[in-house]
Amino acid sequence: MREGEICFANEPIIRVTARIIEAQILESFLLNTINLQSMVASKASRIVSAACGRGVFDFALRRTHGADAAIKVARSAFIAGAQATSNCLAGELYGIPVAGTMAHSFVMSFKDEIDSFRAYSLTFPDKTILLVDTYDTRKGIDNALIIGRRLKDKGFMLKGIRLDSGNIVSLSKLARRKLDGAGLGYVKILASGNLDEFKIKELLEKGARVDSFGVGTNMGTSIDMPCLDVIYKLSEVTDKRGDFLPTMKLSRHKVTFPGRKQVFRQIGGKGKFSRDILGLEGEKIRGERLLLKVIDKGRQIYKFPALKNIREFSRKRLEAFPHQLTRVNFSYKYPVAVSAQLSKLQKSLMSQLSMRQ
Amino acid sequence: MREGEICFANEPIIRVTARIIEAQILESFLLNTINLQSMVASKASRIVSAACGRGVFDFALRRTHGADAAIKVARSAFIAGAQATSNCLAGELYGIPVAGTMAHSFVMSFKDEIDSFRAYSLTFPDKTILLVDTYDTRKGIDNALIIGRRLKDKGFMLKGIRLDSGNIVSLSKLARRKLDGAGLGYVKILASGNLDEFKIKELLEKGARVDSFGVGTNMGTSIDMPCLDVIYKLSEVTDKRGDFLPTMKLSRHKVTFPGRKQVFRQIGGKGKFSRDILGLEGEKIRGERLLLKVIDKGRQIYKFPALKNIREFSRKRLEAFPHQLTRVNFSYKYPVAVSAQLSKLQKSLMSQLSMRQ
Repeated sequence: MREGEICFANEPIIRVTARIIEAQILESFLLNTINLQSMVASKASRIVSAACGRGVFDFALRRTHGADAAIKVARSAFIAGAQATSNCLAGELYGIPVAGTMAHSFVMSFKDEIDSFRAYSLTFPDKTILLVDTYDTRKGIDNALIIGRRLKDKGFMLKGIRLDSGNIVSLSKLARRKLDGAGLGYVKILASGNLDEFKIKELLEKGARVDSFGVGTNMGTSIDMPCLDVIYKLSEVTDKRGDFLPTMKLSRHKVTFPGRKQVFRQIGGKGKFSRDILGLEGEKIRGERLLLKVIDKGRQIYKFPALKNIREFSRKRLEAFPHQLTRVNFSYKYPVAVSAQLSKLQKSLMSQLSMRQ
Repeated sequence: MREGEICFANEPIIRVTARIIEAQILESFLLNTINLQSMVASKASRIVSAACGRGVFDFALRRTHGADAAIKVARSAFIAGAQATSNCLAGELYGIPVAGTMAHSFVMSFKDEIDSFRAYSLTFPDKTILLVDTYDTRKGIDNALIIGRRLKDKGFMLKGIRLDSGNIVSLSKLARRKLDGAGLGYVKILASGNLDEFKIKELLEKGARVDSFGVGTNMGTSIDMPCLDVIYKLSEVTDKRGDFLPTMKLSRHKVTFPGRKQVFRQIGGKGKFSRDILGLEGEKIRGERLLLKVIDKGRQIYKFPALKNIREFSRKRLEAFPHQLTRVNFSYKYPVAVSAQLSKLQKSLMSQLSMRQ
C-alpha cells in the first residue's frame, strides 16, 4: 500500500483510503481480525463486569477455534480486564500473566488425592491451587486443609483451592468456613466449570464465597454470539479527474452511509459519554473524533501503546460510558445519531442512484 | 514422544498412551484441534445435507475466529461435502477448489452496475458470476441478461448470478424465468446472505430456484453450537511394577469410563450402522474397531489419505448411518451402548475409589 491511509478507532470502526485493489485485499483480513477480537473483548468485558472486581482468568485454550484464536482470545480478554491466561504461548508472546491450576489428570495419576496435593505443593509451595473435585469435593476440601496447614508450618501460604463442579454456592461457603476455621483465611477460592457472566452474577447474588473465576468455553467462543457483523463498504470513489465522489450500497434491504466519515463522541454530565454522532470527516461537530490516523501514505505513523496501557485505557473508557451499559442484563441503547449533513448526502445520493440504475 | 501410541477414529475419539507428561502436553492441542474441526465438519455436513445435492460454497473467511480457523473451516467444510471455498490460501494449502464472485465494492467502484458487469465479464468471460443486488435486484437481473446475451454472442457462457439479499424465493423464481426466456437456461443461480441448514431447507421447500448456496458466518462459526465438549481424561496408569491399572474421574457430577477402551461399530439391516458399543480394547465384540493406531512407539505408522479421499470416505460413512440422523430436524439418537465388561469395571472401581478417598 504505497499511498493509502488507514484510520482506527477505539471501537470496531476502521476507515481505509487506498487504491481499490489494495483496499479489497485488506477486506477479509480486517473483517476477520476486528470481528474476533472485538467480539471476545466484549464478551470478556461483560464477564469481568459481572465478577464485580474479583479476578477473571482465561481458561479457553481447549475450546477456542484453533490455536491462533486461543492467542487472540487471551489478548482480548486481558485487554478487557482478565487478570491472567492459562495459555503459556500467549503469555510468552504478549507478556500476559500466566495462571493455572493442577489438572484432574494430575490428581488421577496418583494413588490418592492427598498424594497428588502433596507432590504439587512440594514443587510449587508458594503458588499451589488445589483442584478439589476429582473424587468428592468435601473430602477434597479436607485434604486441602491438611496441605494448607502443612505449608503454613513450613512458612508457605497455600494460594487457593479450585471448585470445578457441583453446587458452587454451597461448596464455596463450606470451603470458606473450613478454611477460616483452620486458620487459612488467606487461601482464595477459585470457581470454574461452564461459567459465563450470567452464571457469575447468579453465583454472587446467591452469596457464593468465590474470589476469582476461571472462564473458558463461553468466553473463548463468545458462545451466545460467536460472530460480529462488522461490514466493510465502499463509500467514496474518485472520478476521472481524481476528485472524490461519495458512493453507497442501495439495495431494497441494505443501505449504507456514503462519503468519508468520522465518529464524534460527545460528553454529557459528570464526564460520561452521552452519545456518538456519525458525520462526515469535514464536518465541525462538537466531540472527540474517534477515528485516528494509523497509516499515512502507506507508512505506520501511530505507535501502538503497550498492552497494559491498552488495558488501562479500555478500563477508563468503559467507566466513562453510562453505567447502564455495563450491566449484565441491560436494555439501554447507547445513542448514535447521524449528522444532518451526512443524512442529507445519503438522501440525495439515494435518489440519484435509484434514477441511474 | 519416544514410546507412546496414539489411536484415531473416524469420529472425534482419540486414545493416547504415553508417559503422563507427554500425554498432558498434548491435551490442549488435541482438544482444540478436534473440537473446531469436528464441530465445523458437522455443521457443514448438515448444510450440505439440507442443500439436497445442490452445491455449497464456503464463504466464511470474514467471520471465522481468525485466519487459522478460516483455513481449518475451509478444509472441514470440504471434507463434509462443500464444493469449494472462497479462501484462496486454503485452496493453495489443501488443493480445495476455489470459488467466488465479484464483491459489492467492485460493482460500486463503477459509475453504473452494467459497466461493472461488463468489465468483470471481459476479464473472466467463462467464469463470471454476477452479483445482482447492489442497487435493485430486479434491474440487476436485467443487466445480467444483457451481459449473458453478449457473452453468448461471443461464444461464452455466463456462469451464474448471485442473490445476496431480499426474498430469495421470489427473486430466484423471477431470475430463472427471465434467464430461461432469454435463452440463458444454463446460467446458474447462487444464493447467499446469512444462510444455514434451516434457511436452505425452507428456501427449497418454498420452491426457490437456487442451484448453489454460498454459506459464511453460520457455518464458519457453527453459530448455534460454537464449541464441542470433547474431553480428555486419564483412564489408565501404571503401578510401580509397570502394570496397567484402570482409573477414572469420580466426582458427584462427572463420572468417566476407566481402562483402555475401544469403540465397536455394528452393522444392521441393509448394511446400515446400527449402533456403537463402548468396550475395552481387549474385549472380543462383534463390529468394526473404530480406533486405529496412527502413532506407534512415537512414530507415525499410518499414512493419512489425500483430502479428496477423506471427503469421499466421509460421504460413504454418512450414508451408512440411519437416514434419520442426517435430517435437518432430527430427534433420532444413534444408539451407543456400554459393554458389560466395561460397565462392571466402572462399578467396581467406583466403589474402590469412594472407599479410598
